[in-house]
Amino acid sequence: MYFSDALKTTMANKPLILVTNDDGINAPGIRTLINIMNTLGEVVVVAPDSPQSGMGHAITLNSTLYAEQVFIDNGPQKEYSCSGTPADCVKIAIREILQRKPDLCVSGINHGSNSSINVIYSGTMSAAVEAGIEGIPAIGFSLLDYTWNANFEPSKPYIKTIVQKVLKQGLPNGIVLNVNVPNTSKKNIKGIKISRQAKANWVEEFDKRKNPQGKDYYWLSGKFVNLDSGEDTDEWALENNYISVVPVQFDLTAHHFIKELKNWNLNE
Amino acid sequence: MYFSDALKTTMANKPLILVTNDDGINAPGIRTLINIMNTLGEVVVVAPDSPQSGMGHAITLNSTLYAEQVFIDNGPQKEYSCSGTPADCVKIAIREILQRKPDLCVSGINHGSNSSINVIYSGTMSAAVEAGIEGIPAIGFSLLDYTWNANFEPSKPYIKTIVQKVLKQGLPNGIVLNVNVPNTSKKNIKGIKISRQAKANWVEEFDKRKNPQGKDYYWLSGKFVNLDSGEDTDEWALENNYISVVPVQFDLTAHHFIKELKNWNLNE
Repeated sequence: MYFSDALKTTMANKPLILVTNDDGINAPGIRTLINIMNTLGEVVVVAPDSPQSGMGHAITLNSTLYAEQVFIDNGPQKEYSCSGTPADCVKIAIREILQRKPDLCVSGINHGSNSSINVIYSGTMSAAVEAGIEGIPAIGFSLLDYTWNANFEPSKPYIKTIVQKVLKQGLPNGIVLNVNVPNTSKKNIKGIKISRQAKANWVEEFDKRKNPQGKDYYWLSGKFVNLDSGEDTDEWALENNYISVVPVQFDLTAHHFIKELKNWNLNE
Repeated sequence: MYFSDALKTTMANKPLILVTNDDGINAPGIRTLINIMNTLGEVVVVAPDSPQSGMGHAITLNSTLYAEQVFIDNGPQKEYSCSGTPADCVKIAIREILQRKPDLCVSGINHGSNSSINVIYSGTMSAAVEAGIEGIPAIGFSLLDYTWNANFEPSKPYIKTIVQKVLKQGLPNGIVLNVNVPNTSKKNIKGIKISRQAKANWVEEFDKRKNPQGKDYYWLSGKFVNLDSGEDTDEWALENNYISVVPVQFDLTAHHFIKELKNWNLNE
């Protein structure tokens, strides 16, 4: 079967929405996101066949990729399960699966935070960034609850609002949105706050153990440390029960440092 | 054996330099970088035991990590081979292997370009960024030659110059350097150019094949497309035989778009 044939259904005037994530195609977070998107457009899902958390912007260069159509629920969406990373899913969706460039790419809803420095490690956000590189408006959604049974209900109307705005207004080239939802009840959520990425890091604690052969090995774990006392950050918003929306760019140039760097006179 | 004991050698006043990469600890690129660093400080290498290209900022959350001392040449450096990603290597170096915070982290020399949008997918640069997050001055070095037998000779004096400057002047918090070297002879290199990240992307071409069981699979490949005609970009510098130095930040906030996003009035 050729994907292109499978998608030669008329898309009419509905927006074409690509949905992906990093927790895998069966995760409750993406199932919720698919349900919301089905009310807004023609939905195609291309998502990892297994969890890919912490994959950052990894792509699969040295091994093969599989992508096959799957049927998970009775929704109207088309779904493809892919053996690759979230960034791979977006690439293969655009080049091999979709008939036309999607109007929007949404990634998530991630089980766990992608606020502050977590954006760097996030497979959810790397998928959104990958779509952004391709000139597709893109949003990553995350809920601050790592559990499989996380309650995505309170986030639903906010996700719908944000997606509708982006479908209507678009996003400038080079910018995608990073949306994080506090883990609290519907009535406690105070609204949406446009924020900046908080300065924060992880203080790793490596749990050192011995394997049955007596060889040392480690588990990576750590403690999140917010180093930023600003009240305009995503961390502040989330701690105060706001949904944070951070505009994220993938031009990583520190433009403000170029002038000083030129003064280093490296050629002398 | 405890790493901490192994490193209780006096560091005197020499700078402590952490060396890593994404092509693996045996790659000629890192061996060259180690040799240069041995002339500048006390060197500890913590690098992947196998190639990790395209790993982006992946970290190992769901499996175990190994790190063990290895002896590859007769140089004065201490070396540890790690089963994880480049970002893992930096984390484990800082928390488990090194006795004190290093004065510098260098990553590379990568076999292949990490200019323009490649910085997003780069394991080499993710290691530098990881060190930067920890407040360590950090530089990623790459040579525009993907082959194992790449000629790193012409890059050597430039790498030494840049490292000496950074050791002397430091780098501001939140900034690391992305250095790319053109693949040309010593006499053709025109010098160092401070640049910005060119706007570019990859147009993927998925090579679709059938496995022996008749199932479709793909190889990811693609063509690099420079969309940026600016003469202040890293791509321009490299095409004109300059070594490009781009200051890279990991605050991904698109600060210039926050005001407009607030005008969207998402709470109404």
